[in-house]
Amino acid sequence: MEFQLGEIARMVKGTIVGDDSIIITGINSLDAAGMGDIAFFAGRQYKEQLKNTKASAVIISEKTDLFDGPLVLIENPALAFARVSGLFAPPVPRYNGISDQAVVHESSRLGKGVSIYPMAYIGKDAVIGDETILFPGTFIGERVVIGKRTVIYPNVVIMQDCIIGNDVIIHAGTVIGSDGFGFVRNDSTSVKIPQVGIVQIDDNVEIGAGSCIDRAAMGKTWIKRGVKTDNLVQIAHNVVIGEDTIIVAQVGISGSVNIGRQVIIGGQAGISDHLDIGDKAMIGAQSGIAKAVSPGDVVSGTPALPHRLTLRTSKLIALLPKLNERIRNIEKNLRELEKK
Amino acid sequence: MEFQLGEIARMVKGTIVGDDSIIITGINSLDAAGMGDIAFFAGRQYKEQLKNTKASAVIISEKTDLFDGPLVLIENPALAFARVSGLFAPPVPRYNGISDQAVVHESSRLGKGVSIYPMAYIGKDAVIGDETILFPGTFIGERVVIGKRTVIYPNVVIMQDCIIGNDVIIHAGTVIGSDGFGFVRNDSTSVKIPQVGIVQIDDNVEIGAGSCIDRAAMGKTWIKRGVKTDNLVQIAHNVVIGEDTIIVAQVGISGSVNIGRQVIIGGQAGISDHLDIGDKAMIGAQSGIAKAVSPGDVVSGTPALPHRLTLRTSKLIALLPKLNERIRNIEKNLRELEKK
Amino acid sequence: MEFQLGEIARMVKGTIVGDDSIIITGINSLDAAGMGDIAFFAGRQYKEQLKNTKASAVIISEKTDLFDGPLVLIENPALAFARVSGLFAPPVPRYNGISDQAVVHESSRLGKGVSIYPMAYIGKDAVIGDETILFPGTFIGERVVIGKRTVIYPNVVIMQDCIIGNDVIIHAGTVIGSDGFGFVRNDSTSVKIPQVGIVQIDDNVEIGAGSCIDRAAMGKTWIKRGVKTDNLVQIAHNVVIGEDTIIVAQVGISGSVNIGRQVIIGGQAGISDHLDIGDKAMIGAQSGIAKAVSPGDVVSGTPALPHRLTLRTSKLIALLPKLNERIRNIEKNLRELEKK
Repeated sequence: MEFQLGEIARMVKGTIVGDDSIIITGINSLDAAGMGDIAFFAGRQYKEQLKNTKASAVIISEKTDLFDGPLVLIENPALAFARVSGLFAPPVPRYNGISDQAVVHESSRLGKGVSIYPMAYIGKDAVIGDETILFPGTFIGERVVIGKRTVIYPNVVIMQDCIIGNDVIIHAGTVIGSDGFGFVRNDSTSVKIPQVGIVQIDDNVEIGAGSCIDRAAMGKTWIKRGVKTDNLVQIAHNVVIGEDTIIVAQVGISGSVNIGRQVIIGGQAGISDHLDIGDKAMIGAQSGIAKAVSPGDVVSGTPALPHRLTLRTSKLIALLPKLNERIRNIEKNLRELEKK
Repeated sequence: MEFQLGEIARMVKGTIVGDDSIIITGINSLDAAGMGDIAFFAGRQYKEQLKNTKASAVIISEKTDLFDGPLVLIENPALAFARVSGLFAPPVPRYNGISDQAVVHESSRLGKGVSIYPMAYIGKDAVIGDETILFPGTFIGERVVIGKRTVIYPNVVIMQDCIIGNDVIIHAGTVIGSDGFGFVRNDSTSVKIPQVGIVQIDDNVEIGAGSCIDRAAMGKTWIKRGVKTDNLVQIAHNVVIGEDTIIVAQVGISGSVNIGRQVIIGGQAGISDHLDIGDKAMIGAQSGIAKAVSPGDVVSGTPALPHRLTLRTSKLIALLPKLNERIRNIEKNLRELEKK
Repeated sequence: MEFQLGEIARMVKGTIVGDDSIIITGINSLDAAGMGDIAFFAGRQYKEQLKNTKASAVIISEKTDLFDGPLVLIENPALAFARVSGLFAPPVPRYNGISDQAVVHESSRLGKGVSIYPMAYIGKDAVIGDETILFPGTFIGERVVIGKRTVIYPNVVIMQDCIIGNDVIIHAGTVIGSDGFGFVRNDSTSVKIPQVGIVQIDDNVEIGAGSCIDRAAMGKTWIKRGVKTDNLVQIAHNVVIGEDTIIVAQVGISGSVNIGRQVIIGGQAGISDHLDIGDKAMIGAQSGIAKAVSPGDVVSGTPALPHRLTLRTSKLIALLPKLNERIRNIEKNLRELEKK
């Protein structure tokens, strides 16, 4: 694939400084870029790389003396880079049509242009939208509805009655709609509470590999538009996650937690059940959230505190041996004073 | 499905206050219930919902003025609700018979009424008990023995020689019987210790999705009757887990840990190897257990302390900046006193 | 299988004390060993077991009075035991040839003696080396290259273009080459950064079950020779892991982390992005690594400190209620002194 630099600049609405007719054949980091590649300048810490790059053009936020080839000037170079990268990225590998080695229930309805790999399983009354791709080993349960242009990677399991939107990506090995973890004690034994709800995943969501999203006890577990979750994330029954929230790997979210929009949750954090996490809150990696977080708050630690306070207490914890020593000295001095 | 209220009350051994002949057609939360639904009252914090519910009947522990329809009085409404919920829950979707698109080794033995979905794999000399269900993508290794009425959800892997009991549920994507993590250093490299033991899972166990239970180095990793584990749990080789123990999501249990009965382990907790965890112990979420826990003890934190002490130390950690300030003031005052 | 004791001793380069002609038919722990078994003595804490063992021979580091059968003397009995164990361990169960129920793209190239189980999927232009085993449900993407004598357990997913070495073991349900978690914010929404790199796994690596190793954004995520990782481990895009490093279960490694050789990372630890972890560093279980770790350093805690300091601060945290009390007493005494 190749593009004139001018085409690329128009696509990202950037301004060209220099020759807009050169041909771009690839995209790479400043370090690794060669002849024909476009690269991007992420900020001052990469000055040396900019000076030495062999890229043919650079996406950058302002003019520079460090590179004498053509520039694409733009406010947010990282965003422009992501978009240009999309031009050169190979498409998701697609099986051509519906494999006769797939198992497709006769009552299911498949949209136009679907790609069903061998060994995908589509259950009774399931609906698969136009252009959607099901890789080998995917299990689509009874009455599941999947939207258009969605990609379900290998060995993903979607249990009965769940609803998946348009332009969703679910990475390999993830399980959607397994039973929530609900039991009532009867003397020493645990009686299962049937989990009769569903999981609903809205448009433009991306779910990482090896993750679990449990179906609701009743009603639905709901992942709203634009949410992105990393790998090995646990989302329990009846959780609601607001639009455009980002959840990093190995996070665990307990039952009935209600998370707002544009929240960011760092890796390995855990959230106790039935809590509200407000819009645009930020939760640090490995945090343990045992009470509600207000909109916009930035918290970290276990149990979580305002992030700045956690930074201070962390430093003081490292100083505890010295604090202890100081207290001991004080006690000694005080005893001596008291003697006098 | 529909039941007379009287039938429901008899099933859970409750007492009816009001008309026992009304017809119940579903079950729901107080909030979401409508005409024909039965709901349950979980406690005072739901008084408003009880007042406003449109349910046709309510399961409750004592008489109330807040709802004027018929009541089912019973000591443990949550337990009764779980049982009634079971009446209305759809059964596990079952493939009718043995699919000829499954791969079933000729030497395997299948019980009566088994349900083998397409693309299940059953290895040499495996035994599958009556009424058991194997979903698509399940792998049942050589000589595996599975009991009766057990449900193995899609893409579960059970490696050779493992033993699974009756009425067991294993959720999607879980791996039973992978090699334990055992190596001996030889200079810089790691020499694998063959893992020649098995995993044994007893009756009435439920294992969550996306989990791993490793086979023993020698002997067995043993999950005893009634244990319930949530998603993404790691259970290492030679672990023993006692009856009716409950393990929440993302817990990690190291090799040769011996856990008693009716223990509760909160989400994301980790337990170091070769430790004993006594009967009915409770381990808080995200705890780090580095030494044995006595029967009945309640611990939390990393490293774990008695839970009450952890609550106090957590508060004091948040106060460390103030403690530090107080020490500074004391030192200053003391210096002034000493000058005098 | 059976061996003369002399053969075993020669294989591990040990010295026999006693009869080298006895026949060994199995291997077991001191406790469980019976007639015909060989066992090993791991150290003083097992003296009682040594005294009472019914093993026919014992691997041990020096002569002993506690056992009167033949001994195999050797410096590192654990290592010898691992090797002897390999003699008796059953081989990985192998499908005989290439199943016609597997889906093998006509353009793929399969080496000599490969074992392809039913329902394995091999994509376009993939290359599978001699003697390699693919279990049911494995997905091998387009242009993937796998070396010789490698074992890919059931339901493992290897996405397009990834490279796997010789003598590699990948346990069940693991995902290699899923997209890295890379997004750029555009106002409130997240724009995906295409992940166009690969994963490269070198020779003699063993990857646990249920794990995720993401493909690089550009370039490669690289797991070097001899690395061993446990179950449910998350390795993000562009991570590099040096030779013979050991990673315990549920560890999470963020993007672009560079880990040296012979590092040991304890279970559930997390490492923030773009950090360097030096050769032979040791990271304690559940640690949170937020800055670089120097070669040979031993760290633990969140945030991580030198391990010895963490041990001290942990003790002092448990004493915080007492420290607080001491400060209160000091303040009181000081006030009284000041009055005087």
